[in-house]
Amino acid sequence: MDKQTQLSLAFAALADPTRRAILARLSKGEATVSELSKPFGLRQPTISKHLRVLEEAGFIRQGRDAQRRPRQLVVGGPLKGVDAWIRPFREQWEGRFDNLDSYLENMKRPPK
Amino acid sequence: MDKQTQLSLAFAALADPTRRAILARLSKGEATVSELSKPFGLRQPTISKHLRVLEEAGFIRQGRDAQRRPRQLVVGGPLKGVDAWIRPFREQWEGRFDNLDSYLENMKRPPK
Repeated sequence: MDKQTQLSLAFAALADPTRRAILARLSKGEATVSELSKPFGLRQPTISKHLRVLEEAGFIRQGRDAQRRPRQLVVGGPLKGVDAWIRPFREQWEGRFDNLDSYLENMKRPPK
Repeated sequence: MDKQTQLSLAFAALADPTRRAILARLSKGEATVSELSKPFGLRQPTISKHLRVLEEAGFIRQGRDAQRRPRQLVVGGPLKGVDAWIRPFREQWEGRFDNLDSYLENMKRPPK
């Protein structure tokens, strides 16, 4: 899968509040479908469907316990790609007051 | 619009490579539909449709020139929310080697 497709899949997976909340939960430690079902107040097939989307996008994977089949967060994973994509924009908004300063500085100069 | 809905709209808008490329282009300066149409090799109605999605998610707005109707990036905008959502995950993957260190440190201790 090329980088752009992977990034599109990642963003699409994150466009759902339940999936974002599942990722936040799994960042604290692995959990099974039934362990996720209760706190989220969702039926297990619904949770499984969300987990499938997250797994296809590379955010999560099966844990080691074959019996319980817990899911765990892939630390870093596609979020690193998302973060790298945002970085130049972040640099722009973090630098915007510097730019505003130099803009105002230019305004003060007499016109040529 | 509540924060979660706004975040979902933002992620959904970013799930398309053309829309991501348009945002990257607009981060360099405002552009009209026709100015975007050529380099992207897309028809103007297609560009307009993407711009509508980006505008609804709050990423872009109309520039000041009423005649040309350029679109400009909202510096910061919904990307700040996306960035804030990713932050705890970023801290986790950036800290993972520290955690590994302390894990290995614990391994060395004699069992109680």
